Amino acid sequence: MNSLFDPKSVAVIGASDNPSKLGFHVMKSLVKGGYEGSLVPVNPGAERIFGIKAFASVSVSQVPIDLAIVVVPASLVAGVLKECAAARVKGIVLITAGFKEIDDPAGAVLHEEIAEIANQAKIPVIGPNTFGMVNLRAKLNASFTPEFSMANPGDIALVSQSGGISHLLGFLAMGDGVGFSKIVGLGNRLNVDFAQMADYLMDDPDTRAIALYVEGIDDPGELLAAAKRHAGKKPIVAFKSGSGSVGDAAARSHTGTMAGRHEIYSHAFKQAGILTVPRTQALLDAAKALAACSLPGGPGVAVLSGQAGPSMAACDVCEQRGLEIVRFGTDTQARINELLPPLALRTNPVDMGPAWYDAAAIKEIIRAVMDDKKVHGILFLMMFASANVDALTGISGLLREWGQKKPVVSCILSPPGIWDDQIQELEDAKALVNYATPERAACAMAYLWEHKLLQRIM
Amino acid sequence: MNSLFDPKSVAVIGASDNPSKLGFHVMKSLVKGGYEGSLVPVNPGAERIFGIKAFASVSVSQVPIDLAIVVVPASLVAGVLKECAAARVKGIVLITAGFKEIDDPAGAVLHEEIAEIANQAKIPVIGPNTFGMVNLRAKLNASFTPEFSMANPGDIALVSQSGGISHLLGFLAMGDGVGFSKIVGLGNRLNVDFAQMADYLMDDPDTRAIALYVEGIDDPGELLAAAKRHAGKKPIVAFKSGSGSVGDAAARSHTGTMAGRHEIYSHAFKQAGILTVPRTQALLDAAKALAACSLPGGPGVAVLSGQAGPSMAACDVCEQRGLEIVRFGTDTQARINELLPPLALRTNPVDMGPAWYDAAAIKEIIRAVMDDKKVHGILFLMMFASANVDALTGISGLLREWGQKKPVVSCILSPPGIWDDQIQELEDAKALVNYATPERAACAMAYLWEHKLLQRIM
Repeated sequence: MNSLFDPKSVAVIGASDNPSKLGFHVMKSLVKGGYEGSLVPVNPGAERIFGIKAFASVSVSQVPIDLAIVVVPASLVAGVLKECAAARVKGIVLITAGFKEIDDPAGAVLHEEIAEIANQAKIPVIGPNTFGMVNLRAKLNASFTPEFSMANPGDIALVSQSGGISHLLGFLAMGDGVGFSKIVGLGNRLNVDFAQMADYLMDDPDTRAIALYVEGIDDPGELLAAAKRHAGKKPIVAFKSGSGSVGDAAARSHTGTMAGRHEIYSHAFKQAGILTVPRTQALLDAAKALAACSLPGGPGVAVLSGQAGPSMAACDVCEQRGLEIVRFGTDTQARINELLPPLALRTNPVDMGPAWYDAAAIKEIIRAVMDDKKVHGILFLMMFASANVDALTGISGLLREWGQKKPVVSCILSPPGIWDDQIQELEDAKALVNYATPERAACAMAYLWEHKLLQRIM
Repeated sequence: MNSLFDPKSVAVIGASDNPSKLGFHVMKSLVKGGYEGSLVPVNPGAERIFGIKAFASVSVSQVPIDLAIVVVPASLVAGVLKECAAARVKGIVLITAGFKEIDDPAGAVLHEEIAEIANQAKIPVIGPNTFGMVNLRAKLNASFTPEFSMANPGDIALVSQSGGISHLLGFLAMGDGVGFSKIVGLGNRLNVDFAQMADYLMDDPDTRAIALYVEGIDDPGELLAAAKRHAGKKPIVAFKSGSGSVGDAAARSHTGTMAGRHEIYSHAFKQAGILTVPRTQALLDAAKALAACSLPGGPGVAVLSGQAGPSMAACDVCEQRGLEIVRFGTDTQARINELLPPLALRTNPVDMGPAWYDAAAIKEIIRAVMDDKKVHGILFLMMFASANVDALTGISGLLREWGQKKPVVSCILSPPGIWDDQIQELEDAKALVNYATPERAACAMAYLWEHKLLQRIM
């Protein structure tokens, strides 16, 4: 699998200079993505592709091939895989569609045929019927979407059963400043399924949290066993679609698996310590928090807010999700009362509005709350206003120094371009994780606590 | 109220050149926001402010004042209001805090005193304890946040009991391309409450949908009566915080109102035809759909998707929210089967993946579904991939021409900068409303249907 995800050489079988062919887009992904290893276009009908010398087959390539990306028609795939086996290719990304996901039973027969070839040769295959995969740390874009190279490198590995969802989350993450180690489209899972990916990613030094998008798995037990085997090592969070009857039927049809039944998955995932979330955006939000935050030692949350309204929206979600808006210890409350005039909420949630101009007071409030034993995590909410533009600078040092000894989850929001860089720097320093709404921030804190509880159960 | 929201002249009482004073930020809002009427800084200690001739009081201003924005300390407000009354000021935005929201009972006494002055003089007052208000169509930024002028002008009026939530939604909307007619921070509601705003906005030609953020109202009956009085005229959608006990207590404390009890609000709002939503982001999402879409004639939805995964996530939400993923009519299904090869889902949801390169086929599928009597609304989902970059261009004409005879709600997503302009143009043409996730798009469709049902009940 290492050679698959971090190959020294890549062949594109079915490479093309014609933009109406996927083989063109795959070549573009590798070239524009800045892949630094040997790149070998394979196409019997071309001398050069993208200006690079092309070969008629992997068997006549001058360099040994670590990874072959296959984009030939389905009918040619078996032959290509045999050539790959003979040439001792170490891993394959099989983009070609038209196997067991189609109405025609011939697709399933073909699937079995190529599975046998790959398994006999012990070649791990991502796909078929996938957009491919991306290793952002290795500048390897082995997909038909060159724009995946625009994604930020980061700590989250996304493993998805749907190319559409991979694209969705990839693009959402670009806007949210969330980074990935790898984005992997499993497709029809010839011999690399969620379980194999979990095993691999648990030992992947670039990955701190594993996010799964699941439609249906043939053998869920494999994944559950893998998750249990690595329990406590790295968090796994999953979004399983198909909670409704239509989505479930569609999932079964789309992926060629029969095992839908949403509740069974939820229960089994929980038993295996896998956190489940109900939405695409939540998958990203939870993975981001799990990759960057310490886990709370209990459900007690302090809500510190620059304005009262957002803190109420956050408190509502906290209470719905099993977090407690704790009553501060006597010392903490006394300190806050010294620092804040009696003009606004001073108990939990704390409205720090009256201290906008007083960065020292805000810092002292945060410090007092951090030291309160009843507080297990801090929700920090602040909306920009012209008058509080310096407030973030005032507390950055403290937040960095604190280094999330207890988790700090925030909703710090400004018009585009004002606080963006400062927030990104705080996130990069792992001083906090930030979300665009107070409710998403509160949910992220709840996910941290739910994950902690799952670890305790196991 | 017209003079308040669209004044020919504005006085800033407490104007300042000192950036540590709110009077500075208010002046900056008006000047940088491009307000085109007469601007009169009032400050007895200055000759000029922002280079504009200042006056000691509104009573000595050379022009009659339509709107006075007041940012003097609380102790001076009563005197200032008397001067405004004497000078026949037509409306006031009272930013000053320190009235009934503070711990000290003197605040409530002061509130009553200034209420009597304003009511006797029949001057409508926004505030006290507010960031102000913005009329984006009139380039009037009567707030202490100059950055509100960066918001897009649009059809939604946001009326909020929290400055923090106004800032939050204002900034979120900038990122989402959502536009406002007005953003109004009600503060402690001296004599302009939700009911008065609803009455005013129902006749405001710039406003197509009214979004309310509610913490607690002294006399909810007034708002309900106003909503019923204007039933069917313009949609009202409300987010009420305080569903949990902490948020509820905080809301009561923050706004000085005693009437929390979340369920009672939800029920009463429903009776009055006001749609309620559970989150800040949802308030924006629902208002955006209600301002731009026709209403579905029934719960039947067609889900057309460029990829299968996102359609499953959308179907799950549709089913949860009372929408039906209808079985297409025989003719529709036959037409789709002609247009799509049997490689993917062809019933509802439709996976149009195999037709990526065939804009004509995608157009025909959409047209067939639009004409199906069982379909009341269309969810259109498409994730960008290098290979389908032209797909959006291919269908833009059809969507514009169709003009939402049935609502079209979409999740069309690309990396930043690729499809953004095209999507914005389609939204501006009211050909569709677009959301960043399939679930938010599905929710928006559900809000349209829920709103339709509320109208039927009334």
